[in-house]
Amino acid sequence: MKIVKIISEIENLRKSFAGTIGFIPTMGYLHEGHLSLVKLAQKENALVFVSIFVNPKQFSPNEDLQSYPRDTDRDIALLEQVNVDVLFLPTPTEMYPEGFETEVSLSNLPQRLEGAVRPGHFTGVATVLTKLFHIVQPTAAYFGQKDAQQVAVVKKMVKDLNFPIKIIVGETIREADGLAMSSINVFLSPAERKEASVLYQSLSLAEKMFKDGETDTEKIKTEMTKLIEAKSGMIDYISFANEQLDEVAEVKNGTLVSLAVRFGKTRLIDNIVIK
Amino acid sequence: MKIVKIISEIENLRKSFAGTIGFIPTMGYLHEGHLSLVKLAQKENALVFVSIFVNPKQFSPNEDLQSYPRDTDRDIALLEQVNVDVLFLPTPTEMYPEGFETEVSLSNLPQRLEGAVRPGHFTGVATVLTKLFHIVQPTAAYFGQKDAQQVAVVKKMVKDLNFPIKIIVGETIREADGLAMSSINVFLSPAERKEASVLYQSLSLAEKMFKDGETDTEKIKTEMTKLIEAKSGMIDYISFANEQLDEVAEVKNGTLVSLAVRFGKTRLIDNIVIK
Repeated sequence: MKIVKIISEIENLRKSFAGTIGFIPTMGYLHEGHLSLVKLAQKENALVFVSIFVNPKQFSPNEDLQSYPRDTDRDIALLEQVNVDVLFLPTPTEMYPEGFETEVSLSNLPQRLEGAVRPGHFTGVATVLTKLFHIVQPTAAYFGQKDAQQVAVVKKMVKDLNFPIKIIVGETIREADGLAMSSINVFLSPAERKEASVLYQSLSLAEKMFKDGETDTEKIKTEMTKLIEAKSGMIDYISFANEQLDEVAEVKNGTLVSLAVRFGKTRLIDNIVIK
Repeated sequence: MKIVKIISEIENLRKSFAGTIGFIPTMGYLHEGHLSLVKLAQKENALVFVSIFVNPKQFSPNEDLQSYPRDTDRDIALLEQVNVDVLFLPTPTEMYPEGFETEVSLSNLPQRLEGAVRPGHFTGVATVLTKLFHIVQPTAAYFGQKDAQQVAVVKKMVKDLNFPIKIIVGETIREADGLAMSSINVFLSPAERKEASVLYQSLSLAEKMFKDGETDTEKIKTEMTKLIEAKSGMIDYISFANEQLDEVAEVKNGTLVSLAVRFGKTRLIDNIVIK
Protein backbone atom coordinates (compact mmCIF):
# COMPACT_ATOMS: atom_id res chain seq x y z
CA MET A 1 0.00 0.00 0.00
CA LYS A 2 1.28 3.41 -0.98
CA ILE A 3 0.91 6.00 1.78
CA VAL A 4 0.71 9.59 0.54
CA LYS A 5 0.56 12.69 2.73
CA ILE A 6 0.92 15.43 0.12
CA ILE A 7 -1.88 16.54 -2.20
CA SER A 8 0.41 17.15 -5.19
CA GLU A 9 1.70 13.58 -4.90
CA ILE A 10 -1.84 12.16 -5.15
CA GLU A 11 -2.45 14.47 -8.10
CA ASN A 12 0.66 13.14 -9.86
CA LEU A 13 -0.35 9.55 -9.12
CA ARG A 14 -3.77 10.34 -10.51
CA LYS A 15 -2.43 11.77 -13.77
CA SER A 16 -0.51 8.58 -14.49
CA PHE A 17 -3.57 6.31 -14.06
CA ALA A 18 -6.61 6.24 -16.32
CA GLY A 19 -8.51 3.22 -14.92
CA THR A 20 -11.40 3.08 -12.43
CA ILE A 21 -10.79 4.19 -8.86
CA GLY A 22 -13.00 3.41 -5.88
CA PHE A 23 -12.58 5.86 -2.98
CA ILE A 24 -13.50 5.52 0.68
CA PRO A 25 -13.08 8.79 2.62
CA THR A 26 -12.82 8.12 6.38
CA MET A 27 -11.87 9.78 9.66
CA GLY A 28 -9.83 6.70 10.63
CA TYR A 29 -10.14 4.46 13.69
CA LEU A 30 -11.35 1.92 11.17
CA HIS A 31 -13.79 -0.91 11.81
CA GLU A 32 -15.59 -3.63 9.84
CA GLY A 33 -17.96 -1.02 8.39
CA HIS A 34 -15.09 0.75 6.63
CA LEU A 35 -13.53 -2.55 5.53
CA SER A 36 -16.83 -3.71 4.02
CA LEU A 37 -16.78 -0.56 1.87
CA VAL A 38 -13.22 -1.39 0.78
CA LYS A 39 -14.39 -4.85 -0.32
CA LEU A 40 -17.31 -3.31 -2.22
CA ALA A 41 -14.95 -0.84 -3.93
CA GLN A 42 -12.48 -3.60 -4.85
CA LYS A 43 -15.19 -5.55 -6.68
CA GLU A 44 -16.06 -2.57 -8.86
CA ASN A 45 -12.74 -0.75 -9.51
CA ALA A 46 -9.18 -1.32 -10.68
CA LEU A 47 -7.69 0.58 -7.73
CA VAL A 48 -8.97 1.48 -4.26
CA PHE A 49 -7.99 4.69 -2.47
CA VAL A 50 -8.79 5.31 1.20
CA SER A 51 -8.33 8.63 2.97
CA ILE A 52 -7.95 9.13 6.70
CA PHE A 53 -8.49 12.71 7.79
CA VAL A 54 -10.14 13.85 11.01
CA ASN A 55 -11.72 16.90 9.41
CA PRO A 56 -11.75 19.84 11.85
CA LYS A 57 -14.40 21.66 9.81
CA GLN A 58 -17.07 19.04 10.48
CA PHE A 59 -16.80 19.33 14.24
CA SER A 60 -19.26 21.76 15.81
CA PRO A 61 -17.97 24.30 18.32
CA ASN A 62 -19.51 22.17 21.10
CA GLU A 63 -17.79 18.96 19.90
CA ASP A 64 -14.36 17.77 20.85
CA LEU A 65 -12.04 17.43 17.85
CA GLN A 66 -9.06 16.60 20.04
CA SER A 67 -10.64 13.58 21.69
CA TYR A 68 -11.84 11.96 18.44
CA PRO A 69 -10.27 8.47 18.53
CA ARG A 70 -7.13 7.98 16.45
CA ASP A 71 -4.84 4.98 15.85
CA THR A 72 -3.07 5.44 12.55
CA ASP A 73 -0.68 2.49 12.95
CA ARG A 74 -3.58 0.10 13.50
CA ASP A 75 -5.51 1.67 10.60
CA ILE A 76 -2.54 1.22 8.26
CA ALA A 77 -2.17 -2.43 9.28
CA LEU A 78 -5.88 -3.07 8.66
CA LEU A 79 -5.82 -1.40 5.23
CA GLU A 80 -2.69 -3.35 4.24
CA GLN A 81 -4.39 -6.60 5.25
CA VAL A 82 -7.27 -5.92 2.86
CA ASN A 83 -4.91 -4.80 0.05
CA VAL A 84 -5.90 -1.17 -0.31
CA ASP A 85 -3.78 0.43 -3.06
CA VAL A 86 -3.34 3.99 -1.83
CA LEU A 87 -3.87 5.61 1.57
CA PHE A 88 -4.14 9.41 1.56
CA LEU A 89 -3.20 10.74 4.96
CA PRO A 90 -3.03 14.55 4.88
CA THR A 91 -2.40 16.91 7.77
CA PRO A 92 -4.92 19.66 8.64
CA THR A 93 -2.46 22.26 7.29
CA GLU A 94 -2.14 20.39 4.00
CA MET A 95 -5.93 20.42 3.61
CA TYR A 96 -6.60 23.91 5.02
CA PRO A 97 -3.57 26.14 4.52
CA GLU A 98 -3.60 29.66 5.94
CA GLY A 99 -6.10 31.87 4.14
CA PHE A 100 -8.45 29.01 3.21
CA GLU A 101 -11.85 30.63 2.69
CA THR A 102 -14.07 28.52 0.41
CA GLU A 103 -16.95 26.36 1.55
CA VAL A 104 -19.62 24.17 0.03
CA SER A 105 -22.97 24.29 1.78
CA LEU A 106 -26.50 22.98 1.38
CA SER A 107 -29.42 25.11 2.51
CA ASN A 108 -32.10 22.52 3.17
CA LEU A 109 -31.07 18.94 4.01
CA PRO A 110 -28.70 19.91 6.86
CA GLN A 111 -31.43 21.75 8.77
CA ARG A 112 -32.83 18.54 10.27
CA LEU A 113 -31.70 15.58 12.41
CA GLU A 114 -27.91 15.57 12.86
CA GLY A 115 -27.50 18.96 11.17
CA ALA A 116 -29.94 20.56 13.61
CA VAL A 117 -27.85 19.60 16.65
CA ARG A 118 -24.47 19.90 14.90
CA PRO A 119 -24.31 23.40 13.36
CA GLY A 120 -21.88 23.61 10.45
CA HIS A 121 -21.29 19.86 10.45
CA PHE A 122 -22.56 19.18 6.95
CA THR A 123 -20.88 22.27 5.50
CA GLY A 124 -17.64 20.78 6.84
CA VAL A 125 -18.51 17.41 5.32
CA ALA A 126 -19.47 18.89 1.92
CA THR A 127 -16.34 21.08 1.81
CA VAL A 128 -13.86 18.33 2.68
CA LEU A 129 -15.51 15.85 0.29
CA THR A 130 -15.38 18.39 -2.53
CA LYS A 131 -11.64 18.75 -1.91
CA LEU A 132 -11.07 14.99 -1.63
CA PHE A 133 -13.15 14.27 -4.75
CA HIS A 134 -11.07 16.79 -6.72
CA ILE A 135 -7.78 15.43 -5.37
CA VAL A 136 -8.54 11.72 -5.86
CA GLN A 137 -10.91 12.04 -8.86
CA PRO A 138 -12.52 8.67 -8.15
CA THR A 139 -14.94 6.82 -10.41
CA ALA A 140 -17.07 6.01 -7.37
CA ALA A 141 -17.07 6.98 -3.69
CA TYR A 142 -18.36 4.67 -0.95
CA PHE A 143 -20.30 5.64 2.18
CA GLY A 144 -22.00 3.65 4.93
CA GLN A 145 -25.77 3.75 5.39
CA LYS A 146 -25.22 4.20 9.16
CA ASP A 147 -24.73 7.93 8.50
CA ALA A 148 -28.01 8.23 6.61
CA GLN A 149 -28.17 12.01 6.54
CA GLN A 150 -24.54 12.22 5.39
CA VAL A 151 -25.47 9.88 2.53
CA ALA A 152 -28.42 12.13 1.62
CA VAL A 153 -26.25 15.27 1.77
CA VAL A 154 -23.45 13.75 -0.33
CA LYS A 155 -25.88 12.47 -2.97
CA LYS A 156 -27.57 15.88 -3.16
CA MET A 157 -24.28 17.75 -3.37
CA VAL A 158 -23.04 15.43 -6.14
CA LYS A 159 -26.30 15.88 -8.04
CA ASP A 160 -26.55 19.67 -7.57
CA LEU A 161 -22.90 20.33 -8.47
CA ASN A 162 -22.67 17.65 -11.22
CA PHE A 163 -19.65 15.84 -9.77
CA PRO A 164 -18.64 13.15 -12.30
CA ILE A 165 -18.66 10.54 -9.51
CA LYS A 166 -20.98 7.68 -8.54
CA ILE A 167 -22.01 7.49 -4.88
CA ILE A 168 -22.35 3.92 -3.60
CA VAL A 169 -23.91 3.17 -0.22
CA GLY A 170 -22.86 0.12 1.79
CA GLU A 171 -25.16 -1.42 4.38
CA THR A 172 -24.67 -0.77 8.08
CA ILE A 173 -22.37 -3.35 9.63
CA ARG A 174 -23.42 -4.44 13.13
CA GLU A 175 -21.96 -6.17 16.15
CA ALA A 176 -23.47 -9.51 17.18
CA ASP A 177 -26.03 -7.77 19.42
CA GLY A 178 -27.08 -5.35 16.65
CA LEU A 179 -25.07 -2.27 17.68
CA ALA A 180 -24.02 -0.40 14.54
CA MET A 181 -20.22 -0.32 14.19
CA SER A 182 -18.82 3.14 14.83
CA SER A 183 -15.42 4.58 15.70
CA ILE A 184 -16.89 6.26 18.77
CA ASN A 185 -18.31 3.06 20.31
CA VAL A 186 -14.89 2.88 21.98
CA PHE A 187 -16.02 5.63 24.36
CA LEU A 188 -18.86 3.52 25.82
CA SER A 189 -18.32 2.07 29.29
CA PRO A 190 -18.91 -1.70 29.53
CA ALA A 191 -22.36 -1.04 31.04
CA GLU A 192 -23.26 1.55 28.36
CA ARG A 193 -21.95 -0.76 25.62
CA LYS A 194 -24.34 -3.46 26.80
CA GLU A 195 -27.30 -1.06 26.91
CA ALA A 196 -26.42 0.53 23.55
CA SER A 197 -27.90 -2.43 21.66
CA VAL A 198 -31.26 -0.84 22.46
CA LEU A 199 -30.88 1.49 19.44
CA TYR A 200 -31.10 -1.40 17.01
CA GLN A 201 -33.70 -3.16 19.16
CA SER A 202 -35.94 -0.11 18.94
CA LEU A 203 -35.44 0.13 15.16
CA SER A 204 -36.28 -3.56 14.84
CA LEU A 205 -39.39 -2.97 16.96
CA ALA A 206 -40.46 -0.19 14.56
CA GLU A 207 -40.06 -2.53 11.61
CA LYS A 208 -41.98 -5.30 13.39
CA MET A 209 -44.85 -2.95 14.31
CA PHE A 210 -45.06 -1.79 10.66
CA LYS A 211 -45.11 -5.41 9.46
CA ASP A 212 -47.88 -6.10 11.98
CA GLY A 213 -49.94 -3.32 10.38
CA GLU A 214 -49.09 -0.19 12.42
CA THR A 215 -48.34 2.87 10.25
CA ASP A 216 -48.86 5.71 12.78
CA THR A 217 -45.39 7.09 13.51
CA GLU A 218 -46.48 8.57 16.87
CA LYS A 219 -47.62 5.18 18.13
CA ILE A 220 -44.43 3.50 16.98
CA LYS A 221 -42.32 6.30 18.46
CA THR A 222 -44.05 5.84 21.84
CA GLU A 223 -43.12 2.15 21.96
CA MET A 224 -39.53 2.84 20.83
CA THR A 225 -39.21 5.52 23.50
CA LYS A 226 -40.41 3.14 26.21
CA LEU A 227 -37.85 0.55 25.17
CA ILE A 228 -34.96 3.05 25.14
CA GLU A 229 -35.96 4.82 28.36
CA ALA A 230 -35.86 1.49 30.20
CA LYS A 231 -32.08 1.88 29.72
CA SER A 232 -29.85 4.80 30.69
CA GLY A 233 -29.91 6.33 27.18
CA MET A 234 -31.16 9.90 26.65
CA ILE A 235 -33.06 10.27 23.37
CA ASP A 236 -31.99 13.21 21.15
CA TYR A 237 -34.52 12.38 18.44
CA ILE A 238 -36.49 9.56 16.87
CA SER A 239 -37.37 10.46 13.28
CA PHE A 240 -39.56 9.01 10.56
CA ALA A 241 -38.65 10.70 7.29
CA ASN A 242 -39.02 10.46 3.53
CA GLU A 243 -36.10 10.53 1.05
CA GLN A 244 -35.88 14.34 1.34
CA LEU A 245 -35.62 13.84 5.14
CA ASP A 246 -38.98 15.53 5.71
CA GLU A 247 -40.81 14.07 8.70
CA VAL A 248 -43.78 11.85 7.84
CA ALA A 249 -46.83 10.94 9.92
CA GLU A 250 -47.32 7.55 8.32
CA VAL A 251 -44.75 4.80 7.82
CA LYS A 252 -44.49 3.11 4.42
CA ASN A 253 -41.90 1.21 2.42
CA GLY A 254 -38.86 3.43 2.04
CA THR A 255 -39.43 5.42 5.26
CA LEU A 256 -36.15 6.20 7.01
CA VAL A 257 -36.39 5.53 10.75
CA SER A 258 -33.44 7.15 12.47
CA LEU A 259 -32.50 8.04 15.99
CA ALA A 260 -29.81 9.61 18.16
CA VAL A 261 -29.33 8.52 21.76
CA ARG A 262 -26.79 9.72 24.30
CA PHE A 263 -25.07 7.38 26.75
CA GLY A 264 -23.10 9.60 29.11
CA LYS A 265 -20.98 11.79 26.84
CA THR A 266 -21.25 9.44 23.88
CA ARG A 267 -23.88 10.16 21.26
CA LEU A 268 -24.87 7.22 19.07
CA ILE A 269 -26.90 7.26 15.87
CA ASP A 270 -28.51 4.48 13.89
CA ASN A 271 -31.21 3.97 11.28
CA ILE A 272 -33.07 1.53 9.12
CA VAL A 273 -35.01 1.98 5.91
CA ILE A 274 -38.40 0.28 6.17
CA LYS A 275 -38.81 -2.42 3.49
CA MET B 1 -19.53 23.19 -34.02
CA LYS B 2 -21.57 20.85 -31.89
CA ILE B 3 -24.29 22.64 -29.90
CA VAL B 4 -25.35 20.81 -26.72
CA LYS B 5 -28.15 21.88 -24.40
CA ILE B 6 -28.32 18.86 -22.08
CA ILE B 7 -25.82 18.18 -19.29
CA SER B 8 -25.85 14.39 -19.77
CA GLU B 9 -24.95 14.86 -23.43
CA ILE B 10 -21.84 16.88 -22.51
CA GLU B 11 -20.98 14.21 -19.94
CA ASN B 12 -21.22 11.51 -22.61
CA LEU B 13 -19.11 13.55 -25.02
CA ARG B 14 -16.58 14.00 -22.24
CA LYS B 15 -16.32 10.29 -21.47
CA SER B 16 -15.41 9.53 -25.07
CA PHE B 17 -12.56 12.08 -25.20
CA ALA B 18 -9.30 11.86 -23.25
CA GLY B 19 -7.34 14.78 -24.77
CA THR B 20 -6.89 18.33 -23.51
CA ILE B 21 -9.91 20.64 -23.37
CA GLY B 22 -9.83 24.41 -23.11
CA PHE B 23 -13.03 25.91 -21.71
CA ILE B 24 -14.39 29.45 -21.90
CA PRO B 25 -17.48 29.97 -19.72
CA THR B 26 -19.46 33.04 -20.87
CA MET B 27 -22.81 34.77 -20.45
CA GLY B 28 -23.03 35.26 -24.22
CA TYR B 29 -23.37 38.49 -26.22
CA LEU B 30 -19.85 37.75 -27.28
CA HIS B 31 -17.19 40.28 -28.24
CA GLU B 32 -13.52 40.32 -29.17
CA GLY B 33 -12.57 39.73 -25.54
CA HIS B 34 -14.28 36.32 -25.56
CA LEU B 35 -12.88 35.47 -28.98
CA SER B 36 -9.34 36.29 -27.84
CA LEU B 37 -9.80 33.70 -25.06
CA VAL B 38 -10.98 31.16 -27.66
CA LYS B 39 -7.79 31.77 -29.65
CA LEU B 40 -5.67 31.36 -26.52
CA ALA B 41 -7.46 28.11 -25.67
CA GLN B 42 -7.03 26.76 -29.21
CA LYS B 43 -3.26 27.22 -29.02
CA GLU B 44 -3.03 25.13 -25.85
CA ASN B 45 -5.70 22.41 -26.20
CA ALA B 46 -6.96 19.71 -28.56
CA LEU B 47 -10.60 20.84 -28.22
CA VAL B 48 -12.26 24.09 -27.17
CA PHE B 49 -15.60 24.20 -25.35
CA VAL B 50 -17.53 27.44 -24.82
CA SER B 51 -20.60 27.77 -22.61
CA ILE B 52 -23.23 30.48 -22.88
CA PHE B 53 -25.40 30.73 -19.78
CA VAL B 54 -26.82 33.91 -18.29
CA ASN B 55 -26.52 32.66 -14.73
CA PRO B 56 -29.45 33.91 -12.62
CA LYS B 57 -27.58 33.18 -9.38
CA GLN B 58 -24.91 35.81 -10.03
CA PHE B 59 -27.39 38.65 -10.42
CA SER B 60 -28.03 40.58 -7.21
CA PRO B 61 -31.62 41.29 -6.19
CA ASN B 62 -31.14 44.90 -7.36
CA GLU B 63 -29.83 43.86 -10.80
CA ASP B 64 -31.91 43.11 -13.86
CA LEU B 65 -31.44 39.55 -15.10
CA GLN B 66 -34.13 39.98 -17.75
CA SER B 67 -32.50 42.91 -19.49
CA TYR B 68 -29.03 41.33 -19.74
CA PRO B 69 -28.22 41.47 -23.47
CA ARG B 70 -28.71 38.25 -25.42
CA ASP B 71 -28.22 37.32 -29.09
CA THR B 72 -27.69 33.60 -29.35
CA ASP B 73 -27.86 33.41 -33.16
CA ARG B 74 -25.11 36.00 -33.51
CA ASP B 75 -23.04 34.27 -30.78
CA ILE B 76 -23.32 30.91 -32.57
CA ALA B 77 -22.24 32.48 -35.86
CA LEU B 78 -19.20 34.09 -34.16
CA LEU B 79 -18.15 30.86 -32.45
CA GLU B 80 -18.51 28.90 -35.70
CA GLN B 81 -16.32 31.45 -37.48
CA VAL B 82 -13.49 30.86 -35.00
CA ASN B 83 -13.93 27.04 -35.10
CA VAL B 84 -15.04 26.36 -31.54
CA ASP B 85 -15.63 22.60 -31.15
CA VAL B 86 -18.50 22.45 -28.65
CA LEU B 87 -20.98 25.07 -27.44
CA PHE B 88 -22.79 24.23 -24.21
CA LEU B 89 -26.05 26.15 -24.09
CA PRO B 90 -28.10 25.01 -21.10
CA THR B 91 -31.41 26.43 -19.87
CA PRO B 92 -31.78 27.75 -16.31
CA THR B 93 -33.92 24.69 -15.45
CA GLU B 94 -31.25 22.34 -16.77
CA MET B 95 -28.68 24.01 -14.51
CA TYR B 96 -30.90 24.63 -11.47
CA PRO B 97 -33.69 22.04 -11.34
CA GLU B 98 -36.34 22.33 -8.64
CA GLY B 99 -34.92 21.61 -5.20
CA PHE B 100 -31.41 22.84 -6.05
CA GLU B 101 -29.83 23.80 -2.72
CA THR B 102 -26.02 23.65 -2.89
CA GLU B 103 -23.73 26.64 -3.13
CA VAL B 104 -20.02 27.38 -3.19
CA SER B 105 -19.00 30.54 -1.38
CA LEU B 106 -15.87 32.42 -0.35
CA SER B 107 -15.81 34.34 2.90
CA ASN B 108 -13.14 36.94 2.27
CA LEU B 109 -12.37 37.98 -1.32
CA PRO B 110 -16.00 38.81 -2.25
CA GLN B 111 -16.37 41.32 0.58
CA ARG B 112 -14.67 44.10 -1.37
CA LEU B 113 -15.02 45.98 -4.68
CA GLU B 114 -17.65 44.33 -6.93
CA GLY B 115 -18.75 41.90 -4.21
CA ALA B 116 -19.46 44.74 -1.79
CA VAL B 117 -22.01 46.35 -4.14
CA ARG B 118 -23.28 43.08 -5.64
CA PRO B 119 -24.32 40.85 -2.70
CA GLY B 120 -24.31 37.16 -3.60
CA HIS B 121 -22.69 37.82 -6.97
CA PHE B 122 -19.52 35.81 -6.37
CA THR B 123 -21.37 32.96 -4.66
CA GLY B 124 -23.38 32.71 -7.88
CA VAL B 125 -20.19 32.81 -9.94
CA ALA B 126 -18.42 30.18 -7.78
CA THR B 127 -21.47 27.89 -7.80
CA VAL B 128 -22.08 27.97 -11.54
CA LEU B 129 -18.37 27.56 -12.32
CA THR B 130 -18.17 24.54 -10.01
CA LYS B 131 -21.05 22.98 -11.94
CA LEU B 132 -19.58 23.88 -15.34
CA PHE B 133 -16.12 22.63 -14.36
CA HIS B 134 -17.61 19.28 -13.28
CA ILE B 135 -19.72 18.99 -16.43
CA VAL B 136 -17.02 19.95 -18.94
CA GLN B 137 -13.97 18.69 -16.98
CA PRO B 138 -11.60 20.98 -18.85
CA THR B 139 -7.81 20.90 -18.70
CA ALA B 140 -7.79 24.69 -18.48
CA ALA B 141 -10.43 27.41 -18.15
CA TYR B 142 -9.96 30.92 -19.58
CA PHE B 143 -11.05 34.22 -18.07
CA GLY B 144 -10.52 37.85 -19.02
CA GLN B 145 -8.47 40.21 -16.84
CA LYS B 146 -11.22 42.84 -17.24
CA ASP B 147 -13.11 41.10 -14.41
CA ALA B 148 -10.13 41.21 -12.06
CA GLN B 149 -12.00 40.27 -8.90
CA GLN B 150 -13.70 37.37 -10.68
CA VAL B 151 -10.25 36.15 -11.70
CA ALA B 152 -9.07 36.38 -8.08
CA VAL B 153 -12.18 34.56 -6.80
CA VAL B 154 -11.92 31.77 -9.39
CA LYS B 155 -8.21 31.24 -8.72
CA LYS B 156 -8.85 31.11 -4.96
CA MET B 157 -11.77 28.71 -5.32
CA VAL B 158 -9.74 26.41 -7.58
CA LYS B 159 -6.84 26.47 -5.11
CA ASP B 160 -8.95 26.03 -1.96
CA LEU B 161 -11.07 23.22 -3.41
CA ASN B 162 -8.23 21.55 -5.39
CA PHE B 163 -10.00 21.58 -8.75
CA PRO B 164 -7.75 19.69 -11.22
CA ILE B 165 -7.95 22.63 -13.65
CA LYS B 166 -5.55 25.37 -14.77
CA ILE B 167 -6.91 28.93 -14.76
CA ILE B 168 -5.55 31.06 -17.60
CA VAL B 169 -6.11 34.80 -17.71
CA GLY B 170 -6.32 36.66 -21.02
CA GLU B 171 -5.54 40.37 -21.24
CA THR B 172 -8.32 42.95 -21.43
CA ILE B 173 -9.28 43.66 -25.03
CA ARG B 174 -10.05 47.31 -25.70
CA GLU B 175 -11.79 49.45 -28.31
CA ALA B 176 -9.64 51.94 -30.28
CA ASP B 177 -10.27 54.64 -27.65
CA GLY B 178 -9.32 52.34 -24.77
CA LEU B 179 -12.78 51.32 -23.54
CA ALA B 180 -12.62 47.73 -22.27
CA MET B 181 -14.84 45.42 -24.34
CA SER B 182 -17.91 44.32 -22.42
CA SER B 183 -21.30 42.88 -23.31
CA ILE B 184 -23.03 45.71 -21.48
CA ASN B 185 -21.33 48.52 -23.43
CA VAL B 186 -24.33 48.11 -25.75
CA PHE B 187 -26.43 49.95 -23.15
CA LEU B 188 -24.39 53.16 -23.40
CA SER B 189 -25.97 56.06 -25.30
CA PRO B 190 -23.74 57.53 -28.04
CA ALA B 191 -22.79 60.41 -25.71
CA GLU B 192 -22.06 58.04 -22.79
CA ARG B 193 -20.08 55.74 -25.05
CA LYS B 194 -17.85 58.64 -26.00
CA GLU B 195 -17.31 59.66 -22.38
CA ALA B 196 -16.75 56.06 -21.20
CA SER B 197 -13.19 56.07 -22.53
CA VAL B 198 -12.40 58.10 -19.41
CA LEU B 199 -12.12 54.87 -17.37
CA TYR B 200 -9.07 53.75 -19.30
CA GLN B 201 -7.75 57.30 -19.50
CA SER B 202 -7.84 57.53 -15.70
CA LEU B 203 -6.10 54.14 -15.36
CA SER B 204 -3.44 55.27 -17.82
CA LEU B 205 -3.03 58.47 -15.81
CA ALA B 206 -2.46 56.37 -12.66
CA GLU B 207 0.22 54.38 -14.43
CA LYS B 208 1.86 57.55 -15.77
CA MET B 209 1.88 59.19 -12.32
CA PHE B 210 3.50 56.06 -10.84
CA LYS B 211 6.13 56.05 -13.61
CA ASP B 212 6.77 59.72 -12.87
CA GLY B 213 7.50 58.80 -9.23
CA GLU B 214 4.17 59.20 -7.44
CA THR B 215 3.30 56.27 -5.13
CA ASP B 216 0.69 57.85 -2.83
CA THR B 217 -2.65 56.25 -3.80
CA GLU B 218 -4.68 59.18 -2.38
CA LYS B 219 -2.90 61.69 -4.61
CA ILE B 220 -3.33 59.48 -7.68
CA LYS B 221 -6.99 58.88 -6.80
CA THR B 222 -7.59 62.62 -6.58
CA GLU B 223 -6.29 63.17 -10.11
CA MET B 224 -8.24 60.19 -11.48
CA THR B 225 -11.40 61.50 -9.82
CA LYS B 226 -10.93 64.97 -11.38
CA LEU B 227 -10.57 63.39 -14.81
CA ILE B 228 -13.68 61.22 -14.43
CA GLU B 229 -15.83 63.90 -12.83
CA ALA B 230 -15.19 66.19 -15.78
CA LYS B 231 -17.46 63.72 -17.60
CA SER B 232 -20.98 62.60 -16.62
CA GLY B 233 -19.72 59.36 -14.95
CA MET B 234 -20.54 58.71 -11.27
CA ILE B 235 -17.66 56.95 -9.48
CA ASP B 236 -18.60 53.82 -7.46
CA TYR B 237 -15.04 53.18 -6.38
CA ILE B 238 -11.42 53.67 -7.33
CA SER B 239 -9.30 50.99 -5.66
CA PHE B 240 -5.60 50.30 -5.24
CA ALA B 241 -5.19 46.75 -4.02
CA ASN B 242 -2.66 43.96 -3.56
CA GLU B 243 -3.10 40.40 -4.88
CA GLN B 244 -5.43 39.53 -1.96
CA LEU B 245 -7.50 42.59 -2.96
CA ASP B 246 -6.62 44.42 0.26
CA GLU B 247 -6.42 48.18 -0.22
CA VAL B 248 -2.90 49.60 -0.20
CA ALA B 249 -1.71 53.13 0.57
CA GLU B 250 1.30 52.95 -1.70
CA VAL B 251 1.45 51.91 -5.35
CA LYS B 252 4.11 49.47 -6.46
CA ASN B 253 4.69 46.96 -9.24
CA GLY B 254 1.81 44.46 -9.15
CA THR B 255 -0.73 46.86 -7.60
CA LEU B 256 -4.21 46.35 -9.07
CA VAL B 257 -5.83 49.69 -9.91
CA SER B 258 -9.53 49.08 -10.50
CA LEU B 259 -12.61 51.24 -10.74
CA ALA B 260 -16.35 51.15 -11.28
CA VAL B 261 -18.15 54.11 -12.86
CA ARG B 262 -21.83 54.55 -13.65
CA PHE B 263 -23.06 56.21 -16.82
CA GLY B 264 -26.82 56.52 -16.45
CA LYS B 265 -28.03 53.00 -15.61
CA THR B 266 -24.90 51.33 -17.01
CA ARG B 267 -22.14 50.43 -14.60
CA LEU B 268 -18.71 49.92 -16.16
CA ILE B 269 -15.62 48.38 -14.57
CA ASP B 270 -12.02 48.33 -15.68
CA ASN B 271 -8.56 47.78 -14.21
CA ILE B 272 -4.84 47.64 -14.87
CA VAL B 273 -2.03 45.95 -13.00
CA ILE B 274 0.83 48.38 -12.46
CA LYS B 275 4.02 47.11 -14.10
